[in-house]
Amino acid sequence: MTQDLHDVAVVAKDARTAYEESLHLLSELSPAEADAARSDTLREIAAALERLEHEIKAANERDVEEATLLAKQGKLSKQMVSRLDLFAKPGKWDSMVKGVRDVAKLASPLDICTRATRLAEGQEGAGGALDMYSVTCPIGVLLCIFEARPEVIVNIASLAVKSGNAAILKGGKESRRTAAVLARCIAEALSRSVLPLNLVQMVNTREEIQHLVKMDEFIDLVVPRGSKELVLSIQNETRIPVLGHADGLCSAYVHSDAPHALACALVLDSKLDYPSACNAIETLLVHKDHLTSGLWKELAIALLTKGVRLHCDARSLEVVRNEVLPTHDVASLVEAATKADYKTEYLDLELAVRVTDHVEAAVDHINRNGSGHTDIIICAPCSGAKKSMSAAAIFTRSLSSSSVFVNASSRFADGFRFGFGAEVGISTARTHARGPVGLDGLVTYKYIVKGDGDVAHTVGAFAPGENARAWAHTPIEKVYPSV
Amino acid sequence: MTQDLHDVAVVAKDARTAYEESLHLLSELSPAEADAARSDTLREIAAALERLEHEIKAANERDVEEATLLAKQGKLSKQMVSRLDLFAKPGKWDSMVKGVRDVAKLASPLDICTRATRLAEGQEGAGGALDMYSVTCPIGVLLCIFEARPEVIVNIASLAVKSGNAAILKGGKESRRTAAVLARCIAEALSRSVLPLNLVQMVNTREEIQHLVKMDEFIDLVVPRGSKELVLSIQNETRIPVLGHADGLCSAYVHSDAPHALACALVLDSKLDYPSACNAIETLLVHKDHLTSGLWKELAIALLTKGVRLHCDARSLEVVRNEVLPTHDVASLVEAATKADYKTEYLDLELAVRVTDHVEAAVDHINRNGSGHTDIIICAPCSGAKKSMSAAAIFTRSLSSSSVFVNASSRFADGFRFGFGAEVGISTARTHARGPVGLDGLVTYKYIVKGDGDVAHTVGAFAPGENARAWAHTPIEKVYPSV
Repeated sequence: MTQDLHDVAVVAKDARTAYEESLHLLSELSPAEADAARSDTLREIAAALERLEHEIKAANERDVEEATLLAKQGKLSKQMVSRLDLFAKPGKWDSMVKGVRDVAKLASPLDICTRATRLAEGQEGAGGALDMYSVTCPIGVLLCIFEARPEVIVNIASLAVKSGNAAILKGGKESRRTAAVLARCIAEALSRSVLPLNLVQMVNTREEIQHLVKMDEFIDLVVPRGSKELVLSIQNETRIPVLGHADGLCSAYVHSDAPHALACALVLDSKLDYPSACNAIETLLVHKDHLTSGLWKELAIALLTKGVRLHCDARSLEVVRNEVLPTHDVASLVEAATKADYKTEYLDLELAVRVTDHVEAAVDHINRNGSGHTDIIICAPCSGAKKSMSAAAIFTRSLSSSSVFVNASSRFADGFRFGFGAEVGISTARTHARGPVGLDGLVTYKYIVKGDGDVAHTVGAFAPGENARAWAHTPIEKVYPSV
Repeated sequence: MTQDLHDVAVVAKDARTAYEESLHLLSELSPAEADAARSDTLREIAAALERLEHEIKAANERDVEEATLLAKQGKLSKQMVSRLDLFAKPGKWDSMVKGVRDVAKLASPLDICTRATRLAEGQEGAGGALDMYSVTCPIGVLLCIFEARPEVIVNIASLAVKSGNAAILKGGKESRRTAAVLARCIAEALSRSVLPLNLVQMVNTREEIQHLVKMDEFIDLVVPRGSKELVLSIQNETRIPVLGHADGLCSAYVHSDAPHALACALVLDSKLDYPSACNAIETLLVHKDHLTSGLWKELAIALLTKGVRLHCDARSLEVVRNEVLPTHDVASLVEAATKADYKTEYLDLELAVRVTDHVEAAVDHINRNGSGHTDIIICAPCSGAKKSMSAAAIFTRSLSSSSVFVNASSRFADGFRFGFGAEVGISTARTHARGPVGLDGLVTYKYIVKGDGDVAHTVGAFAPGENARAWAHTPIEKVYPSV
């Protein structure tokens, strides 16, 4: 074993031990007391951040300085530099610290009873029912990998602690000085809390990550947040479940009966509110009726005059050439779509456009080309015609995407907007947590079966025969079982 | 591409297309109507089985004949032959057919609203609320791999159809003739139903499976049922999520205050009710007080006289040597435990034994050696002493196993016994479905956001400023959204 691999195996093992220790330490507390202990730790993190603000600021300035230099040499994007800076944008620092206290205040995702069944009634005289409960519990050890933004270290650490997990965090190398001080804050807070010090650990290099993603005996979930390349490389290297998304290839479909003003407003918001977000649309599907209804022309003018480059199929291109270009000087923004355009996540002011003959064709297009992130249909309002409702029903039921919206901007696909309080990320997986993932995505569940009374609850007692016990299988109150 | 790989790619692609088509076909129906259509298909399967009973019997006889010959040559176990036979054991055939109709009657796991939130109220005058719903939906395409028992083909096909998924099934080669006729029954039933013919397909060879587990663009979940070797080899070959368990290394811990009769009955049931089951215990942890309380001696005698071989640690071995062997002729069943014994799933009349000083040591032992399947604590009944309750609380909260039982046999870890009606298998994964998995484990969920009224529900409308819309984030009634 190389020294490197050895060190990283120690980190992984320490994380597992810390996770198990934390369960031990809190196991004699009630669920509410355990949550209070976790939330107290978060408040310690917030306090430590405030205590070390000047030191964090100094470290962050040095990271920003170095990044600025690299940006001048063209080795780093300006966007990256601005993401790195914790203090330039007013309120960014304060909202990071406040975020930690907000997570502390969220309802605990743990120890929630989601199913409770009486398996068998007690026997007359002898007493002793047999009850089954499904209760939420932490997943275990999380490995969280993200790029530039140093505040994500603090966010993810808070979410991990609140949800009872251990975490190993890796930020971008550009933010390493800031990250080191933030990690010290978290360590200080843990050392003042009842939780084990190694519950949150940091690693620094890609090589460490390459080792860690192989350690499925210690690590239970990988959460990569960042570029498509980052997520894909993680997905390819690990057998551990990955929570995240590589692509946000979102589409909007404008049905035949969509009101024009509604369609324009929703398409513009979905594309333009934040073009580089994963929940911005990359493809616009337009029902063929709108080639002549005037809506496609209206949409094209609205998008082109906002500077959006359109990659059009033959039918939509013809309308733009005949009805838009003669009166608008935007020819440079219009081109014929290639097959690849419908598979491209532009993350920029570009949009692929295709005309479809009916809602089913739109669904087929999205099934073949989309990434299962967020897709929307724009149609006559729900209080309106039966015909449109049917299109919305077909769209919402036929698509397997994690978020399917009717007459709402794709940009609503977001944990905060969904009311989750905090967001772990957005997942396009088909199992476990999907769509915008809040604290709920960092927990799993276990079954607790509790046999009451002096009865020996054996399966033998249920074997056919005289005096055999009978299955009850009736729902009982969903409460955390008192054992 | 070899012909083999080409053929198997067609199977996978056809499954995906059939899945998408089935969503299309049912998308204009209400959730209840769609469930009725799926359940009708199941009743068609049951009818087809009854129609073709003689043909199935003839095929099964030939499979059994061949297997019997192989068993005589020592190439196959007798157990395998008996598992293969659909007709020898009275009621086996009938209960298989009845099982299909029982699954049809189960409540649909689909289209259930598990969360509903009003994201924003409508604006006065303009109307139009913005609501978010989380609703259950199928996962997609399942790849189910299992060994000898031919009835599993019918079980899994029923569960897949009921939960709205497509399935590719692969049985053992010993049952290939039976499987071929069963597959014809399923195909006939599908051809009489509204669902696509390719919704359930069969493949026959291991080579096909090796290709299929790589096709993550078409397949969403792999369900291997069978030996540890089968499950491990699948887990090692695929990046697709796997639902199942390689090991069932279950433990029972007998706490200091456990009543003797209760402990004996529960340990015997957990070990002896069906020793080759995955939920039978393989390790017995005994609190040190029972070295002198007489309970360990009692347990040892009960187990040894039932023919259970005991692999004992030093302390438990001493008691057996001094207090059991002088009066019982069972010395050949007693041996010193090695480290490996605590990691061994015997699936037979063997048990590893270890004395622990307290409940925390038992938890540590299970965390280090167990497989996260099912672990039980035996202690003073829940109506009893506070001290014991604390041990049960520590045990249930500190263990991450998917099933943790208090004073109940480990053999209750089973989908039927949990009241799920049908069992897909038992999963030891930390994410998605865990423990005994019913139909619920074959579904996932998606978010549907519905914007009402003529309002354009843009995120721009929520941007700070005059007339900004406000987030409501209030719970609303959990119903399937009408769109």
